[in-house]
Amino acid sequence: MISDVFCKILNKELPADVVAEDKDWIAINDIHPQAPVHVLIISRKHFADLIEAKESDAELLGKMILAANEMAAKLKLEKGFRLIINRGEDGGQLVPHFHIHLLGGKRLGAKIVND
Amino acid sequence: MISDVFCKILNKELPADVVAEDKDWIAINDIHPQAPVHVLIISRKHFADLIEAKESDAELLGKMILAANEMAAKLKLEKGFRLIINRGEDGGQLVPHFHIHLLGGKRLGAKIVND
Repeated sequence: MISDVFCKILNKELPADVVAEDKDWIAINDIHPQAPVHVLIISRKHFADLIEAKESDAELLGKMILAANEMAAKLKLEKGFRLIINRGEDGGQLVPHFHIHLLGGKRLGAKIVND
Repeated sequence: MISDVFCKILNKELPADVVAEDKDWIAINDIHPQAPVHVLIISRKHFADLIEAKESDAELLGKMILAANEMAAKLKLEKGFRLIINRGEDGGQLVPHFHIHLLGGKRLGAKIVND
């Protein structure tokens, strides 16, 4: 049985600060925010990471990306935002359940990775 | 007439180091790489940024995300990678033509934005 922390949130076995939700995804505030706005858009369908996504998941992935536009409007991120998908150890992925980071609320700058 | 630098690359008016291409996108090496691997996956369809994408673009966006899996295999990023989409000034977007950054080849760490 799959029981990563995001599955537990989706199953309401763990609480979360829900920002918005849809039939395909749920968006919650990150408990360790790295910017004034740091939301996680989590797929209801479980897959451990992007590498597990299939061609037939293209529309789901696209809808999750577009969900960021909705969220940005809701959270008043008119000046912009950044989306990040981490895959695997080198990518800095922490939870083995596909999710997209939405960051904003400050100027994030053109240097997009740390040294 | 739209003539951002990525349109010029797509129209072959400017050279670029092409990694892979498809009917929907072209992937090139970033001229100012921020990691050992830093590829830009650029949509052939012109839209200035994610906010301009419509619901009907969901599949295109998803295919571009999935293209990163192909590229990661091709570039031997078995240990992982990071995808970044910058939108607008706060997001650090530099070119007004939709593109996805693919970064890898080193451990990027769990701190995903700079201070």
